[in-house]
Order: sequence, then C-alpha cells, then structure tokens
Amino acid sequence: MIESVQNPAVKRVVKLRRARVRRNEGLFIVEGHREIGVAMSADATLNEVFFCRQLFRDEKQEDLLAALWKQGVTLIEMAQGPFEKISMREGPDGLLALVPTWETSLESLALGENALVLVIAGIEKPGNLGAVLRSAEAFGVNALLCVDPQLDLFNPNVVRASQGLLFRVPTALCEQRAALDFLHRRNLRAFASSAHCEKPLWDVDFKGGVAIVLGNEANGLDPVWIENADERLTIPMQGKANSLNLSVAAGCLLAEAHRQRR
Amino acid sequence: MIESVQNPAVKRVVKLRRARVRRNEGLFIVEGHREIGVAMSADATLNEVFFCRQLFRDEKQEDLLAALWKQGVTLIEMAQGPFEKISMREGPDGLLALVPTWETSLESLALGENALVLVIAGIEKPGNLGAVLRSAEAFGVNALLCVDPQLDLFNPNVVRASQGLLFRVPTALCEQRAALDFLHRRNLRAFASSAHCEKPLWDVDFKGGVAIVLGNEANGLDPVWIENADERLTIPMQGKANSLNLSVAAGCLLAEAHRQRR
Repeated sequence: MIESVQNPAVKRVVKLRRARVRRNEGLFIVEGHREIGVAMSADATLNEVFFCRQLFRDEKQEDLLAALWKQGVTLIEMAQGPFEKISMREGPDGLLALVPTWETSLESLALGENALVLVIAGIEKPGNLGAVLRSAEAFGVNALLCVDPQLDLFNPNVVRASQGLLFRVPTALCEQRAALDFLHRRNLRAFASSAHCEKPLWDVDFKGGVAIVLGNEANGLDPVWIENADERLTIPMQGKANSLNLSVAAGCLLAEAHRQRR
Repeated sequence: MIESVQNPAVKRVVKLRRARVRRNEGLFIVEGHREIGVAMSADATLNEVFFCRQLFRDEKQEDLLAALWKQGVTLIEMAQGPFEKISMREGPDGLLALVPTWETSLESLALGENALVLVIAGIEKPGNLGAVLRSAEAFGVNALLCVDPQLDLFNPNVVRASQGLLFRVPTALCEQRAALDFLHRRNLRAFASSAHCEKPLWDVDFKGGVAIVLGNEANGLDPVWIENADERLTIPMQGKANSLNLSVAAGCLLAEAHRQRR
C-alpha cells in the first residue's frame, strides 16, 4: 500500500503526462473504470493498476478490480493523497492503469475490403481527437490516419475524451506523402471535405473503399488534399461563421457515411 | 498605458473569470480578434478594449483597433506583461474586451414562425456549449435553451469554443418545467433524441416549428423529456460504446434538420 505522495511510483506516473517520457518508457496512463474496461475488452495488456478504495463510487470499480485480479494484473493500492496526485481528474474514481503504447505506423494497419478510413490533417487538440475517436468507433471507421499531427495518441486528454475508444479504432500517425501513397495503394477513393468545396455530402456515394479527409482546427484542408481528391464535398451551412468544430464536422461526415453503408 | 501587472485594471479583468463576479458586475471577457469582431457584427456594446501591440499577429488586429476607435470604444493600451496576465490563451493576439452580459431568461426570446429550437438539458462543459453554439449558428438554429445548466453562458471557455458565436444565437437558461411550458405555448413539436429511442433521425420530418431535445454529457436525456416528446429519435450507431460527444450528437441532428429545412 502506497501511503506517501513522495513514493517513487507517484513520480513515475506523473512523469508519464509528458509525451517524451511516454515515448521513452513505452507506457501511457489510462484512468477511470470505463476507460480501463474498454482496454480490457480490446485485450490490451495492463502492466499495473493503481487503486484507491476510498474513491470508488459504486460496485463497478470493485467488480473491475476483481476481474483484473483474476487476470493476474499487478494491483497496487494507494491512499487517497497519492492517488489524487497521480489522477488528472476533478473527481477520480480510484482506478488508474499503466498500459504499453503500441505501434502507430501506417504499415501496422490491417485493412479489409471496402474499408471506411478517416484522415485528419494537422489535428492540434487532444479533446478533438478524443471526440473523433468516439465518433469513429460509433460510425464503423476501420482506420484513422492522423497526418502531421501536433499531438500524440497517448496523451491523457485523448484517452479521456475518447472514453478509452482509442483502444478500438486502429490509428496511424504519418506524414502527408505517406498518407497519400497509402490511400492510392489501398485503392481508397479520397473524399476531401472543405468549406471551399461545393458538393453537399448527401450527394456523394460513400459506399466501397473510402477515405474521408478533413483539415485541422485552424486552417482547414491543405490544397494538396483537395487537388488529389476523387470527390470534393462540403457540409452545407448558413450563418456568418460558416465553420464547425473539427470533431463536429467529422461526426456529420461519418454519420452520413454510416447511413449509406449500413 | 498600463505597464504594471499590479494595476487594478489587471485584477478587475482576472476576477471576471469567476461566474459570481460576472453576475455582480454584469460584465464578461471577450478575448481575441475574431471573437470581438463577431461581437461588433452583432452590435454588442463594448465597454472597454485592452490591447497590446507587441502581441498583434498581422494587420487584422490593427484594423479592428481602428474600427473600434471610430466607434468611440474606450481603448486601453497594455504592456505585454499585464496583457499576458489578463489573457487566458496560450498565444494571445493582443485584444481583449469587456462586454455587458445580457438577459438570458426564456421571456427574452423572440421567435418567429416555424422556428428551429435546440434544447440541451443539464449541459456541463463550457467547451461543449461553445461547439454547440457554432453548430447552432451554422445550421440556422433560432434559439438555444439550456435547461438546468451546470455552467453559465458568459464563461470565458464558452466564448472561446464558440468563436464568439454566443453573440449570434439567442440563448436562454431555464428550468425544465419552464422549458416544457415554453415549447407547448409556442406550438413547437418536441423531438427527443436518445440512444434509448429507435427511429433514425432521417425518418423524422424536421420542417415547421421544431425543438430538438438532447441530454447532457454524463446521463443522457431525462425520461420526462422522452415521455413529453412528439417524436422520439436516435442517431443510429454501431460499435461497442454507442455514444457520441454531446456537441457531435447535436451537430449530427442539426445537420439533418438543416438539410430538410433549406
């Protein structure tokens, strides 16, 4: 039982909030009952799980702990003080796991026939990537490509905003050239979405092997993607701003693709 | 020119980050060139604008400053130190306004015939409300009702995530009973959206006077709304999680409503 906030384990976990430390250690933080549950359902390896019974909310946390115990996962009890130190939440539920990171190269993606792929170029905000991962899982995306991302997949805020669904959506981080080659080699039709295009998304046929391509929060989509696209589409809007939050735009496109492909 | 971070003006602005101070003073913070521009386009009164030329990014900030000067707005120059103290951004652009809050009661809403209204019950996160406001403006929502909200409209993170569009979407904060009465009195058909309902949103007729009703981030929609609804609909999904980020769900519903109503 870890009682002190000075315990080396506390420092080790807190350091994993930094991308460089995650890369060096090959580990990341998965906090919360729901998120750890998704990791287990995806057969992820859990190196160790810290728990603090005083913070458990109901029997769900205790049940998950029993399931982890049965699987032989290393369980480490913590007093409330040190647990609140390793937690990044306002109301922690007393469960936090350390999980090995995995390969996020394009080559690691296995895609079947008629895949639905989502490509996001230059994504900046972990909260947006997390929300995109939730939508991707809900609407049957087979792979997510983050092109030239300004964050890493294992950021604690991605884990949280995705509610753990980063474990269920195969995701690659890559450069633009490699992504274009990948879509070409896999015979995926590239559908570029931009406020500068005119064809409404409902007039596009999303069936078959398709890659939906979106730009980032600040700048929209790089013209290279629009030039190389097989379809150029837009989400029709009115109003003065004529722009959507990135994860909202991705959600609208994926909902329509899912409607057509069901 | 304010040179010291100890200047009372700096403290006055920083205090406005607190909801209670905003309520007492009847003022809130609008930071950034884009957000202040939206406020001006909506004919909002700007009490005073703080600016810091060293932080200007390009001529857009200088042009906005000239337009504010022409309108007779009080302009207060600040050195970089104090400006960075009043700013809540990582990369401030050197413009920050204090703007009077306004009435957010249901009675203050003026609605025409065949209005499109969005109702969100129990919203918790300012970032979600901001993203919802962007979608609401883009998809032609005439009014937004926040029922029993756990935040206030003038929170700096709402201003930011909405990119200032809170100035362009009439919004009321109210209790559940009052919202139900309002929809009834205005002859708005209530469309409850929940993962527990079955009718796909595409099979619903969104034309005419319609209120789309959504639950909050944690708990989905209160059964009272589902019982009192004229239509009960859902966003069809697959996957394990079967849930979307709140602002993504709102965006999918509004995109479909907008498609049908254009």
